[in-house]
Amino acid sequence: MKIQPVKGTRDFYPQDMAVRNWLIDGWKRVSVRNGFEEYDGPIFEYLKMFQIKSGDEIAEQLFSFEDRGGRELALRPEITPTLARMVNQQINSLPRPIKWFSVPRLFRAEKPQKGRLREFFQWNIDIIGIDDVLADAETIFCALDYLKEAGLTPDDIVVKISSRKVLAELLKSIGIKENQLDALYVVLDKRSKLPDEAFEEMLAERLPDENKRGKILELMAVESIKQINDCLELSKEAEESIKELSRLFELLDAMGVGDYCVFDIGIVRGLAYYTGIVYEIYDKASELRAIGGGGRYDNLLKLFGGPDIPATGFGIGDCVLGILLEEKGLLSKEISTGRPEYFVAFTDQRYIQKAVEVTSKLRLAKFAANFSYKPVGLSKQLKQASEQKVKKCIIIGSEIENNQLVIKDMATGKQELVKIEQFLTQIES
Amino acid sequence: MKIQPVKGTRDFYPQDMAVRNWLIDGWKRVSVRNGFEEYDGPIFEYLKMFQIKSGDEIAEQLFSFEDRGGRELALRPEITPTLARMVNQQINSLPRPIKWFSVPRLFRAEKPQKGRLREFFQWNIDIIGIDDVLADAETIFCALDYLKEAGLTPDDIVVKISSRKVLAELLKSIGIKENQLDALYVVLDKRSKLPDEAFEEMLAERLPDENKRGKILELMAVESIKQINDCLELSKEAEESIKELSRLFELLDAMGVGDYCVFDIGIVRGLAYYTGIVYEIYDKASELRAIGGGGRYDNLLKLFGGPDIPATGFGIGDCVLGILLEEKGLLSKEISTGRPEYFVAFTDQRYIQKAVEVTSKLRLAKFAANFSYKPVGLSKQLKQASEQKVKKCIIIGSEIENNQLVIKDMATGKQELVKIEQFLTQIES
Repeated sequence: MKIQPVKGTRDFYPQDMAVRNWLIDGWKRVSVRNGFEEYDGPIFEYLKMFQIKSGDEIAEQLFSFEDRGGRELALRPEITPTLARMVNQQINSLPRPIKWFSVPRLFRAEKPQKGRLREFFQWNIDIIGIDDVLADAETIFCALDYLKEAGLTPDDIVVKISSRKVLAELLKSIGIKENQLDALYVVLDKRSKLPDEAFEEMLAERLPDENKRGKILELMAVESIKQINDCLELSKEAEESIKELSRLFELLDAMGVGDYCVFDIGIVRGLAYYTGIVYEIYDKASELRAIGGGGRYDNLLKLFGGPDIPATGFGIGDCVLGILLEEKGLLSKEISTGRPEYFVAFTDQRYIQKAVEVTSKLRLAKFAANFSYKPVGLSKQLKQASEQKVKKCIIIGSEIENNQLVIKDMATGKQELVKIEQFLTQIES
Repeated sequence: MKIQPVKGTRDFYPQDMAVRNWLIDGWKRVSVRNGFEEYDGPIFEYLKMFQIKSGDEIAEQLFSFEDRGGRELALRPEITPTLARMVNQQINSLPRPIKWFSVPRLFRAEKPQKGRLREFFQWNIDIIGIDDVLADAETIFCALDYLKEAGLTPDDIVVKISSRKVLAELLKSIGIKENQLDALYVVLDKRSKLPDEAFEEMLAERLPDENKRGKILELMAVESIKQINDCLELSKEAEESIKELSRLFELLDAMGVGDYCVFDIGIVRGLAYYTGIVYEIYDKASELRAIGGGGRYDNLLKLFGGPDIPATGFGIGDCVLGILLEEKGLLSKEISTGRPEYFVAFTDQRYIQKAVEVTSKLRLAKFAANFSYKPVGLSKQLKQASEQKVKKCIIIGSEIENNQLVIKDMATGKQELVKIEQFLTQIES
């Protein structure tokens, strides 16, 4: 019976797995050097948990199911609700700030498209317990530390940054009411994703007042923080929030990643729960979806029944990032599925058990070692060894009757006859 | 709103995650040095795929669901069906032998118990394309290479080995028909899991002939391969299969892991699809469930619509293994959640931005580095640095006005005043 894989999922053959490991190991390594500790939660949780932060609409994007006890469960579409649940559970014993990262496998029941699959990995970084914009800067730095190490330059990618606080103050200053803001964010978030006409139509639906709409369009055309001052008269709160945003850019400059970062008032993020700095990372050519995004969400823990503690963080998926790295030629060079240090060859089938014995001794001494299952001639085995790019080849031949074996250095071609005892003592030490 | 995790799942807080990583990284490292390449498949597949190898009963142990297109899907309870599907898909281009490993996250809708959860990890090793018992020996060696490295000795664990081929021949020689074998395996597999009386009752249900039952009980009491000869007159086929089993033990001795291995005719494995060597790994005290098990299943690829190619492999879960390592005190010593190399302290809040700048430079140069978010005094920062077990502490103080900083070696306590330029050049090279 032949069966297909499910659409939107991936098979990771060894070469694909090597790429996935290379990506994820990079995320882990950079997270750790930035002072983050790894955590993870279950693949499935109660369905209702995923609706707290993202509303009921998220249910349409979920793979959900009932267990035998009739509980409504769902495969996680994101890790943030789990993070909130876990932190709240141990809020009194966790030292702060909580600097955690995770590389969860996530699931969304969406139509598979380029850069969007039903099953993917996402790098998540969060700092909980710091309301200083320095924490936002550190998360952005951490993302860029990885992307830079992967070989992406400011010619390849850009972090577009804005502030929900700034936007809220500016919108209020042109007469938008506090309780209209969340609905408006959803529309403004669509601006760069829609043709101008469609966007303006959508905006008009939400906001009938033409005068206010004009001011919003003017505001959304602002290209620098400085320009905001020319465009509007600022309240004290607006000035404060602009100062904070400016400090973020200063910090990113001091951190040495300022050249990747620009202010973009069009970055809004659709979700209601962002409260401060927001950002998205794009390929410079804007040909792909966002590589990742994040921001400050000071109400998160409270939303999940916990205390009022500030938080900021981001998520970067593996699909768009993988496509970009591939396009830029940054994937293939470094990645291999593993290279053994030793290949143990035999000159005659009689010696295969001895070859297996030596291979096993090498492995127990923590060396990667291979032998050939096929009893082919020595020259073919040496060819295999050379294809596998091993450093040294051990040859078991008639010398074994005198307890000796041959060690061939594959780089220099030099061969050496060594007592087996001596060789084994050497590798074990 | 407060939400609980689902029963039978686990939250991995940083300390738990460090243990999980330590386990899984060990599996990966040992697999690679034994010449295996890593692969993985999707978390969910078509439900029917999981019924091919394990029958309809498996459906009761599955988390299954329908997607929006009405497809019946299930969370994978094991990776072997995915392996068979993937290998069959590329059977003509994959070089043989195929030596693959995987560390999938798996799901079973069972009642959670000690050592058995609804969500767990399992190390899988498979060799496809070799029908020599040497391949079975290599998989068993690989398991033991890991378990030995983890610190488990022959006093802690035992690999109990038998052969389906031997058992089949012996059962046939006492009059059991070929088509009765599969049903009988299921019963015999239960012997060590049931009280004698319950087992004999179950056997009687399956096999009404008292004479045959007596012979089976006699057979199952055999304690060594040699003893089989005394117990029964052997057919030529039985002799051949016993010779193969004996060679396996010879190979395991040559490999240096023979002291972990015993013959145990009671190892049957319930599933119909095993065809040769079968084995299970237990704690020596027999207080826990099996740590893992495996064997030869030469019909696997064919069962999944592929060609007739021999295969052998095992699975080891993380739950029982974790409990055993914990009990033996082999877990806690080596595991940390990461240790930074540098801690960047500041003597006055004015210098925090400079401290952040130096921390960022260190991280970009691939060093793990931390700083304190809390503007506490220097002595408290040095205490933090010491708690984090860093090697060096950088102190940013008034010397920074002369472009200098202090480097404190935390082991010796020695302090050194260094030009900042010089320090940065040094770390970047």
